[in-house]
Amino acid sequence: MNQRLKGVMNWLAEKQIDMAFVQTKANVFYLSKFYTEPHERLVGIVIFPTSEPILICPNMEKPQAKAAGWEYEIISYSDSENPWHLLEQRLKKQHSSVNTIAIEKEHISYTRANALLSIYPEGNLVSVEEKLYSLRLIKDDGELAILKQAAKLADYGVEVGVNAIKAGKCEMDVLALIEYELKKKGIREMSFSTMVLTGAKSADPHGNPGLTEIKRGDFVLFDLGVVLDGYCSDITRTVAFQDISEKQREIYQTVLGAQLQALSVCKIGTRIGDIDLAARNYINDAGYGDYFPHRIGHGLGIEVHEFPSMSENNNDLLQEGAVFTVEPGIYVPNIGGVRIEDDIVITKDGFESLTSFPKELIIV
Amino acid sequence: MNQRLKGVMNWLAEKQIDMAFVQTKANVFYLSKFYTEPHERLVGIVIFPTSEPILICPNMEKPQAKAAGWEYEIISYSDSENPWHLLEQRLKKQHSSVNTIAIEKEHISYTRANALLSIYPEGNLVSVEEKLYSLRLIKDDGELAILKQAAKLADYGVEVGVNAIKAGKCEMDVLALIEYELKKKGIREMSFSTMVLTGAKSADPHGNPGLTEIKRGDFVLFDLGVVLDGYCSDITRTVAFQDISEKQREIYQTVLGAQLQALSVCKIGTRIGDIDLAARNYINDAGYGDYFPHRIGHGLGIEVHEFPSMSENNNDLLQEGAVFTVEPGIYVPNIGGVRIEDDIVITKDGFESLTSFPKELIIV
Repeated sequence: MNQRLKGVMNWLAEKQIDMAFVQTKANVFYLSKFYTEPHERLVGIVIFPTSEPILICPNMEKPQAKAAGWEYEIISYSDSENPWHLLEQRLKKQHSSVNTIAIEKEHISYTRANALLSIYPEGNLVSVEEKLYSLRLIKDDGELAILKQAAKLADYGVEVGVNAIKAGKCEMDVLALIEYELKKKGIREMSFSTMVLTGAKSADPHGNPGLTEIKRGDFVLFDLGVVLDGYCSDITRTVAFQDISEKQREIYQTVLGAQLQALSVCKIGTRIGDIDLAARNYINDAGYGDYFPHRIGHGLGIEVHEFPSMSENNNDLLQEGAVFTVEPGIYVPNIGGVRIEDDIVITKDGFESLTSFPKELIIV
Repeated sequence: MNQRLKGVMNWLAEKQIDMAFVQTKANVFYLSKFYTEPHERLVGIVIFPTSEPILICPNMEKPQAKAAGWEYEIISYSDSENPWHLLEQRLKKQHSSVNTIAIEKEHISYTRANALLSIYPEGNLVSVEEKLYSLRLIKDDGELAILKQAAKLADYGVEVGVNAIKAGKCEMDVLALIEYELKKKGIREMSFSTMVLTGAKSADPHGNPGLTEIKRGDFVLFDLGVVLDGYCSDITRTVAFQDISEKQREIYQTVLGAQLQALSVCKIGTRIGDIDLAARNYINDAGYGDYFPHRIGHGLGIEVHEFPSMSENNNDLLQEGAVFTVEPGIYVPNIGGVRIEDDIVITKDGFESLTSFPKELIIV
């Protein structure tokens, strides 16, 4: 039994929950290594405290599930069959009495939750999501190896972008080239919509890359990441084009100082909120507190934004193997915005940065 | 009042439903023209049979909602506020008694449905989705103008791809160039993960573009589309590289014949299933029936796959203004696959094709 499934089984036993049903793409992948986007079709895993788990998926996906390493029972169905009927028949054979069912309450549809309740009308629904998030929080060696590789590709994306900056080029020219070079390396999917924002747009949290030309004295902000083998990276760097004012230089150095300050407290046992505060206090002291409107970062893994949310009121303590972003920013209307973001992992001795593109001010 | 909101209001009145709550990105956009990806944050529209609708969204999204043209009440909230409490306070003022609430049952989370029920514990939940799908089915002139432009960009993507085919190039080289050229035109998002599949991979429904090189005698299959102003396009073309066998030629001509046959029945009043059957019978007669495993097409609009599903058992009749894909395919293991797909709109006189890249066999 893989450790991840075992972790859920042990939790079910401990909490006296009879069954868990998991059906989001990310959690199915985490528990089975089966990476699939079934759209409206049902793909799910039923987990029990002691007996073996069951996967349900469309017929045509069954070979992929096995190829991914799923070695337990599979219920598969054709487009003309009702998967819930098949699931009910199978479940009722072995598990006639079920009192409590753990589901992804925030991410299962009303229709699906009711389909489960129609199998077990007396069932009490509880959440399985916190447990899965806490398991996913700590990355194993295999996950870390992929995340490091994904981060290197994000570094490369920034490198391509910085090298592409020229007078007369617009945001989309640079963005298109970044994705072109990454796709030629076999990357099929970016982990979110790539951002290249220039000049005043770099300060707009709602700015979308477009046909705005890069001009002398602009900040150019890059925020991008790739999906590699199911895992995401996420990097932000900001550079200046040809010229920079004293004010811009002060903003840049303040963000860099805040990011280094936040990184300096990243080690086992740190209260997560204190990472945010380390950067926030630094920026406040420099007089830019009103221009840092977001949290310091977020967990990173199968999803580009995952547990935990790294905000100042998070009282959880950092654990070894946690992977997250550290990304302070200052956004001054009409002048521009600077954000510097790394992906890091908490290690025995402190932290290791997965991203490594230079952070010292670059004037292209 | 815009016609779309009015359509829902009239339906609520007719069905004696007290309230609808809509919270998917696509339906919120359709009803408000406010295009937003709020991730886990709540953005929703409450609609009543007679009184004005209310939008709820994060504070920072409020200006965008107004800019998009929302002229009714907005409840906005900060990250430290509970949007459901604000919604409850506001709703209870004006609508103390609510018996029936229409929701997106297939696309609202269990948690959100329960949050609504905690406001109105006696509420009976019904589905609003069929109604919204039937409204979205018929495109207005503004939507058609965007869909035509999106289709032209898809044509251009295929043109770039066909021109990029060369010995030694792999699938991802060609794919990367297609997206590069489209992004330089300002396209930020493809409507789905672009497919460029060569040789035997063109016959694999689970084939993913990769580093496979294009070889003499290969079919090269392109399936791609763009998102423009919130609307999607979707085109497939298949070309041969340098050489083609008699068998491949026969497969190509059979798919082309089937597609033209299917198009020939596309007019007001046709049973949707008969479009599928027109292509299916043609392919069956040619002896390739076992190699056409999917439906003839799908509705197209704000989502790349939307209502209706164009399968042989769909008894609905075509209406003027419906936009959908017509995409028969034959996939023969080890030889390759051919699919030809156009986006079309039903007009007063028959149909108009939005995509227009040539369909006659091209040998590059």
